[in-house]
Amino acid sequence: MIQALGASNGIAIGKAFVLPHWEWELPDQKIDVADLAKEFERLYEGIRRSKTEIALMKTELDETVGVSEASIFDAHLAILDDPIFMNEIQGIIQRQYKVAEVAVKEAIDHFVTMFDLLDDEYMKERALDIKDVGNRLLKHLLGAPEIALPEDTQPFVLVVRELSPSQLIHLRPELVLGIVTMVGSPTSHSAIMARAFGIPLVMGVDGKLEEPIETGELIIVDGGAGIIHVGPSGETVLRYSEIRKRQLEEREQLLTIAELPSVTPDGHKLILAANISSIKEMEAALSNGAEAVGLFRTEFLYMDRNHFPSENEQYEVYRDVVKMLDGKQIIIRTLDIGGDKQLDYYEMPVEDNPFLGYRAIRFSLDRKDLFKVQLRAILRAAVHGDMQIMYPLITSVEEVREANALLAEAERELEAEGVPFRGGIPTGIMVEVPAAVAIADLLAEEAAFFSIGTNDLVQFTLAVDRMNENISHLYEPFHPAVLRMLRTVTEAAKRKGIPVSVCGELAGDVRALPILLGLGIEELSLSAQAILPVKEGLLRTSAAESRLFLEELFRLPTVGQIRQAAEKFHAETTLSASPGRVYPGV
Amino acid sequence: MIQALGASNGIAIGKAFVLPHWEWELPDQKIDVADLAKEFERLYEGIRRSKTEIALMKTELDETVGVSEASIFDAHLAILDDPIFMNEIQGIIQRQYKVAEVAVKEAIDHFVTMFDLLDDEYMKERALDIKDVGNRLLKHLLGAPEIALPEDTQPFVLVVRELSPSQLIHLRPELVLGIVTMVGSPTSHSAIMARAFGIPLVMGVDGKLEEPIETGELIIVDGGAGIIHVGPSGETVLRYSEIRKRQLEEREQLLTIAELPSVTPDGHKLILAANISSIKEMEAALSNGAEAVGLFRTEFLYMDRNHFPSENEQYEVYRDVVKMLDGKQIIIRTLDIGGDKQLDYYEMPVEDNPFLGYRAIRFSLDRKDLFKVQLRAILRAAVHGDMQIMYPLITSVEEVREANALLAEAERELEAEGVPFRGGIPTGIMVEVPAAVAIADLLAEEAAFFSIGTNDLVQFTLAVDRMNENISHLYEPFHPAVLRMLRTVTEAAKRKGIPVSVCGELAGDVRALPILLGLGIEELSLSAQAILPVKEGLLRTSAAESRLFLEELFRLPTVGQIRQAAEKFHAETTLSASPGRVYPGV
Repeated sequence: MIQALGASNGIAIGKAFVLPHWEWELPDQKIDVADLAKEFERLYEGIRRSKTEIALMKTELDETVGVSEASIFDAHLAILDDPIFMNEIQGIIQRQYKVAEVAVKEAIDHFVTMFDLLDDEYMKERALDIKDVGNRLLKHLLGAPEIALPEDTQPFVLVVRELSPSQLIHLRPELVLGIVTMVGSPTSHSAIMARAFGIPLVMGVDGKLEEPIETGELIIVDGGAGIIHVGPSGETVLRYSEIRKRQLEEREQLLTIAELPSVTPDGHKLILAANISSIKEMEAALSNGAEAVGLFRTEFLYMDRNHFPSENEQYEVYRDVVKMLDGKQIIIRTLDIGGDKQLDYYEMPVEDNPFLGYRAIRFSLDRKDLFKVQLRAILRAAVHGDMQIMYPLITSVEEVREANALLAEAERELEAEGVPFRGGIPTGIMVEVPAAVAIADLLAEEAAFFSIGTNDLVQFTLAVDRMNENISHLYEPFHPAVLRMLRTVTEAAKRKGIPVSVCGELAGDVRALPILLGLGIEELSLSAQAILPVKEGLLRTSAAESRLFLEELFRLPTVGQIRQAAEKFHAETTLSASPGRVYPGV
Repeated sequence: MIQALGASNGIAIGKAFVLPHWEWELPDQKIDVADLAKEFERLYEGIRRSKTEIALMKTELDETVGVSEASIFDAHLAILDDPIFMNEIQGIIQRQYKVAEVAVKEAIDHFVTMFDLLDDEYMKERALDIKDVGNRLLKHLLGAPEIALPEDTQPFVLVVRELSPSQLIHLRPELVLGIVTMVGSPTSHSAIMARAFGIPLVMGVDGKLEEPIETGELIIVDGGAGIIHVGPSGETVLRYSEIRKRQLEEREQLLTIAELPSVTPDGHKLILAANISSIKEMEAALSNGAEAVGLFRTEFLYMDRNHFPSENEQYEVYRDVVKMLDGKQIIIRTLDIGGDKQLDYYEMPVEDNPFLGYRAIRFSLDRKDLFKVQLRAILRAAVHGDMQIMYPLITSVEEVREANALLAEAERELEAEGVPFRGGIPTGIMVEVPAAVAIADLLAEEAAFFSIGTNDLVQFTLAVDRMNENISHLYEPFHPAVLRMLRTVTEAAKRKGIPVSVCGELAGDVRALPILLGLGIEELSLSAQAILPVKEGLLRTSAAESRLFLEELFRLPTVGQIRQAAEKFHAETTLSASPGRVYPGV
C-alpha cells in the first residue's frame, strides 16, 4: 500500500499499463559507403511512418476535440514532402556519411536557426512546425518505444511519469479505469480534467515505490484516499470491490437528482453551472445536469498545439460548444495563460514569482494582436447562442475599459468586413485578486457580472501558494478574511444589480454551501463531478438558516473556529437528511 | 553614457576601482617527491595568511557592526590549529603527492561529509565552519586576487559585478564615492543600504557597456537618473560637478531642519522614525533627525555570518542599538527571511513562488527553537530602553496568539533562570498581507500597534511582483484598492485606539504624504535619506487640507486619475512654498 496524493475520487481495480518514459540518444558512428542505400531506405521508412501517424492524429483530434485541425497537420505532412528539407537531410547522409537520425537532427537545427533569424512571426511558426515534424521523424528512426495504448481493448490502470492535459484529452475514457502518476499536483489542470471525466487519480507516487510498477500487475487506485495497492491480496481486492460498488450505487442515486431543479427546501434558486475546457468535459457536465457553462477555459485551445490558433479555428470550437448547449448560457473566459500555464510554442519570460507575474489579462492587453483574434472569434460564435465574455485577473477599472475598447474595435472591424457577429455581448470579470475585491463597487460599474475565482483569491489574500507543500496548511478558504472579501464582492454586486457567481474550488466544497447561500451568491460554476454532490447538499440546506449561520460565522475571529462551525453545520444538515438519501420529489 | 537602473540618489565623480570577479580552478598535476617540503611550506604560508585575515575581519566586524563575533572567529582559528584536520591535509600531500590546494579541498569534503552524516545540528554547524575556513585557505593557496580595496586612501567609484549586503557593510563610506553594479535590483537590500548610507548607486549595467570599465578610468554616477558616464568629456564633468554642488547645498539646507519638530503648518504631529538594519544605518538615521526606530530589520544579523546567531550575540546587538537610541523608541521586527532573503548556512526549500511561500513568521512559528532564542535576546535587551516587538507577514489571529504564547514562555524561562529581562513588552504586527487588512479589526484586539508594510501589501493586493520587469508598470501604490486598504487599517486601529505607522517605501514618497496625513497615520518609518525630504514636505502640508484632498481621491475610480491628482496636489504645495526653501523657524 502506498499513500500518495488523491487527485480524483473513485476506486479503480485493474491491471497496470505503464507508459514508458524515454529520451533518445543520437548514435555516434559513421556509415559505410556500401550502406548508403540502406540508410536512405531507413530514412524513407521513418518518413512513411511519420506520415501515417500524423494522419491518424488528425482524425483522432477531429473526433475528440471536435475542431478541424487539418491546416496544422496538412502543413506537417507538407514538410515531409518538402524537397529543400529532404535534400538537406539526404545531402548530409550522402556527403558526410552520417546516420539518418543525425542528418535529420542537423537539418532541423539548420532550418530552425535560419527561420528564427528571419525575425518574422510567420517564419518562426514554420520553424516550430519543422521542429515538431523533425522530432516525430527522429522518434521513428530511433525506434523509440511508441507512446501508444495497448492494442487489446481491455480496460487498464494507466501508470505514467507525468500526465499532461493534452495526453489526458487523447485518452479513451472507457479504457482507462484509473491513473497513477509519479509526479504532479492535485491542483494541476490534468487533475482538474481527471475529476471532470470521473477517472480516479493518485499522484506523486515517485520515491514511494520499492520497485517500479510493471505492466500487467494488478493495481488498486483509491483516488479519494490517495492510496494505491500494487499486487493486492484477494481480501483487499474484495474489500475495494465492495467500496467501489457502494460508491457507484451512490453515484447512480445522485444521477437521479440530475434533472431536479436546483433549489433549497425553502425555495431559493441557485444555478449550478459547469467549468469546462473541452467538448469532452462539456458532455460530462451536461450528463450531470449542468444548467449552464459558468467558465469555459479557453487556454486549452491554445495549449494542445504548436502555434496560436487562428480566428477560424477558435470560432469553430466556440461555435460547436455554444451549439451543443442548445440555448443554455456560456461564459467564455479569455486566454488565461502564464503562471503555471505555459504554451509550448511561445516563450514566456522566466519569472521569480509567476503567480504574481505576466499572465491572463496582462498578457492579452500586452499582445492585443492575439487578443483581438480571440475576441473576433467569440463575437462571431456568439451568433449561435447565449454567450458572454469574462476577463481574468482584473485588478483595475482601466483594464476592463481597455479590454472592452478592443472588443468594440473588433466589432467595428467585423461590421466593416460584413462578417456576421453578435454585438453588445455582456462582458464580466473574474474577481480573483484582492484589488478587485477592494474596488468591487467601481468594477461593478464596468462589468456586467462578477465571477469570484476563489483559488487565486485565497492565494493572494493569504499570500500562500497552495502548491507549496511547506505552507499549504495555511491555504484556507474558511479564513475570516476570505469570508469578508466574498461579502464585499456580493454586496457591491447586489447594490449595482449585477449577478455574482463563484467558480473556484470552494464552490465544489459542500461544507461551504451554507456560506455561499448565506451570501446570496446566484450561481456556482463547478467541475462536472461536483455538480450532483453540491446539488444533493443544496436540496436539503435552507437558505434562511444559511443566512443566520453566516451571521454567526462573521462573529468568529479565528480560522479554526470558522472551520469547526462550518463542519458542525454540515454534519447536522447531513444527519437531518432522511436515511437512505431520499430527495424531495424523487 | 549608459542608462541603467538608478538605485540610490546622488552624483559621484571619480576614478573607478573595479573589483575583480573570479572563480578558482584546482591544478591537476602531481608533485615531485623532491618538492614535498616546498609544498608543505606553501600550505603553512596559506594557513598563516588565513589566520591574519580572520583576525583582521574579527576586529573589523567588531568595530563596524558593533557585536563581538569573537566566538565564530575563534572557532575558525581553532580549526586551522586542529591536528586532525591538518593531519588529513598533510597525509594527502605526503602519501598521494597531491598539491596543497587539492589536499585542502579533499580534506574539507571529507570532514563536511562526515559531520553532515552525523545528523546533529551542532556538528552540521561545525561542518559549515570547516567549509568556510577551508575556502579561505584555498583562496590563499591559489593566489586568487584579493578582494580588497585599494591601499591608497583616494576615494573611488566602486565597480562590482554584484553587491552583497555584507560587502557593503564592510566598506568604508568615506572612501566610496559611488557604486556601479553589473547586476542587481534597486529594491534589493544592498540598494536599501546604499540609500541609507547616501552612496550614489547605479545597478544593472551588464550588457550595456561596449567594453569593460577599467580601474583608474574616470566615471560619473548619477544615481537619481540611473546614468553612468565612462571617460566623460570635460564639459560633462563640469556639468555634473555643478549639479552635484547644487544637490549638496540642498542637502545642507535640508540638514538645517533636522532638529525641527515634525509637525504640519496646522500643528499636526507626525513621528518620523527610521528603518535600520545595522548600527551604521542607525548613525545615519540619527544624524538625519530620526525620532525613533520604527523598523529594525533583524535578518541582517542572521545573514552576515555562517550559522544562526546565539542568544548572547543577538542580545549584545539589540542592547547596543537600544542604548544608542538613548530613550527613543525602537520596534524590533522578528526574523523576516525567505522570499528573496536567504541564509547561506540554512537551506530553505526551493519554491515556485517564494513571495507566497515559507517565510517570515511562518518560518519562525515552524522553527520555534530558533524563534525563542530571538525572543529571549529581545526580552533581555529590552531592559536597556524602550523596545517593542513586531511580527512580520501576519495573516491570522492565531499566528499572533501563537507568537505571543512563545514570548510568554520565553519570559517564564528567563524568570526561572533568574536572568534579567523586561516583561510585558508591547507586541505589534506588520500589516502587509491583504488578509491582515480584511481582519484588521480582529487583529487590533491582539496587537498593540500596526505597521503597514506597503511594499508587500501592494504586491499581494495587485498580484504584482514588482521585481518583475514585464509587469512592474502595474505595481502602483496610488491604486484605489491600496488607498482603501490603508483606510480600512487606520480606521480599525483608531476604533481600538492603537497607533498605526507606515514603514514601506510609500512612506518615503513625498507625493504620498497628503494621503498618509489625510488617513491620520501617526508615524512614518523611513530610510535615513528619506527622513529630511519627507520632513520638508511635512512642514508645508496642511493636515486639514490633506483630509479634504483624500476625500476627493476616494471619489476617483482609476489609478491614472489618482496619480494625476496626487501629483497636481504635490506640485501646488511645492509651488506655494516660499522661494529659497525657507522653513518656519529656521
